[in-house]
Amino acid sequence: MAPLKVGFVGTGIFASDFHLPALQAIPEHFTPYSATNRTKSKAEKFAEKAKIDGSKVYDTIEELVKDDQVDFIDALVPVQHNYQVIKTAVDAGKPIIIEKPLAASLEDAKKIVELDKSTKVPILIAEQWVYFKAIELIKERLTKIGDVVSFTHKAIQQWNPNSPFLQTKWRQNPEHIGGFLSDGGVHQIALLTEVLGNIESVSANTRQLRDISGDDDILFSSVKLASGAIGTYTYSTVFANNKPESSLIIYGTNGSIYLDYTDKDHITIDTYVGETTSTNPQHIEFKEDLFSEGIQYEFENLYEAITSNDKSILKATPAKSFHHYAFFVAAIESSKDGGGAVKVAQL
Amino acid sequence: MAPLKVGFVGTGIFASDFHLPALQAIPEHFTPYSATNRTKSKAEKFAEKAKIDGSKVYDTIEELVKDDQVDFIDALVPVQHNYQVIKTAVDAGKPIIIEKPLAASLEDAKKIVELDKSTKVPILIAEQWVYFKAIELIKERLTKIGDVVSFTHKAIQQWNPNSPFLQTKWRQNPEHIGGFLSDGGVHQIALLTEVLGNIESVSANTRQLRDISGDDDILFSSVKLASGAIGTYTYSTVFANNKPESSLIIYGTNGSIYLDYTDKDHITIDTYVGETTSTNPQHIEFKEDLFSEGIQYEFENLYEAITSNDKSILKATPAKSFHHYAFFVAAIESSKDGGGAVKVAQL
Repeated sequence: MAPLKVGFVGTGIFASDFHLPALQAIPEHFTPYSATNRTKSKAEKFAEKAKIDGSKVYDTIEELVKDDQVDFIDALVPVQHNYQVIKTAVDAGKPIIIEKPLAASLEDAKKIVELDKSTKVPILIAEQWVYFKAIELIKERLTKIGDVVSFTHKAIQQWNPNSPFLQTKWRQNPEHIGGFLSDGGVHQIALLTEVLGNIESVSANTRQLRDISGDDDILFSSVKLASGAIGTYTYSTVFANNKPESSLIIYGTNGSIYLDYTDKDHITIDTYVGETTSTNPQHIEFKEDLFSEGIQYEFENLYEAITSNDKSILKATPAKSFHHYAFFVAAIESSKDGGGAVKVAQL
Repeated sequence: MAPLKVGFVGTGIFASDFHLPALQAIPEHFTPYSATNRTKSKAEKFAEKAKIDGSKVYDTIEELVKDDQVDFIDALVPVQHNYQVIKTAVDAGKPIIIEKPLAASLEDAKKIVELDKSTKVPILIAEQWVYFKAIELIKERLTKIGDVVSFTHKAIQQWNPNSPFLQTKWRQNPEHIGGFLSDGGVHQIALLTEVLGNIESVSANTRQLRDISGDDDILFSSVKLASGAIGTYTYSTVFANNKPESSLIIYGTNGSIYLDYTDKDHITIDTYVGETTSTNPQHIEFKEDLFSEGIQYEFENLYEAITSNDKSILKATPAKSFHHYAFFVAAIESSKDGGGAVKVAQL
């Protein structure tokens, strides 16, 4: 089978520095074929890097989707445009992969889910964390620790004033609810809910610490899951000098599981089984770089869905992404309300 | 000066196994002198161990406080009796040290604070954590990390089915709000508030995991301080096999401080100063066993207050203890209310 021809919509840093290399790494499956960007010169520059023929740089997405040769759309646009871009692709019968968070508002997010249900055209959300190896490894071990009672999920990443993402105008002036919080934090919520199921309600306090964030950028919350389990979720990428920690700890009636993914080269899962202390947890360690490998998992997942004509195998669906985003909508509402418990919108 | 003569009211395991040895370790300051217990045979057995003359084992606290020789009361009774016991001691002009949590209800707790304000008789709460060396060490370092923005305080201690405290009837059938949660958890709140100031509100989820606890025994919460800082507080001593963690982490605008007191023989404080990551925090390590040393600090504090006739030097006041307890009253109310934000009662 010939490689799928990719049409890029939005050619910013994440397209050129992450998506393009990931696609180019699997030339037997993908060929960069076409591109469009609001600022055409940027699309042209991208096309050069991607070895896309100049004639395939289009002025608009509408022109791009009309090109019969385009097999699917790789869209990386400010999320407030997600719904319109998805609709344009789907109307033209083009499968699409699009960035998280799902939308700028819960209403738009819902419209995307409904559109997804109404069509056989694959719509994949670029939420690479649902492919995180840790998920299956933890799920295999969950039965050993009895019923899940509680959890803590903490993600304190190191403040990086030189991050290219900080310079992105749409992140500095976010139109989507949650700003940097939902842009970054949906990943941990994806991991949490893949392992422990949906979230029922959240009581959150949020704050804005850095002007450049454009909106609240730290979140401390108390969370209740649909399963009845309770826990906390803590998120920040903006604290001053600290010891980064990315961990998901799960407490069950017969033990506990510790995932530490602070260091992508030494991700560990420690499983403590039984009633009382053992000094010898079952320990496993592995490497996984979700920033690079995760993107390849996404494209492979999409490739399978397109070539088998079966969108049911997509792992990062709009419905899941809706839930991840709805968590932040509820958390922001909670914080504005002084930290009260807010139900997370369910589909 | 002659050693102070101690009258014990309540002679259970904490009196005989912890208070008595702590007092006996400083014979130049303290002499066990008298005792009373609801079950007199227990007071007699205690008297034997404490080398208290049999004639000084009284039937009631009222008799005990009438003994002119008693210099102060060391009361260890189910906390629902705290107010009455304190009042009996104060009315007789006897200084008293009494166990936490302060009372069985917020109303009683308030009455104790008011009584304390109305008298020159020293009333010390046996909250040994306010003497924790870590408090001063952290406070000295706080200015280096700028304004405090956030914190996490996590106390997951190992489930110990053989703990003698689990067998205490008044703990299994608690009459005080919060049960095991407030009985144990006030310590961490004492540490937190000594360092970061009072708590304004809490959004909590609590659960009962063990029948023997008699009431809720795990707590996950989102907390707002009077200073505006936000954080989480997590507490359990009842989880199945796990990796215990006792830590207070403070995030400031110019760095962060990590207190890890999981292991009393290796308590560490790591201070990270500045805007971006340094791999070399300032590191200090020390030992402190609050269970034994802490009790001595309390008695020394009380000794100073009695002999100098100055109760203002007492560190664990009823007013502070009221706040620690009020936190749990608010947390339990929050959990019953589905996790909404509840203001912590202020004096």
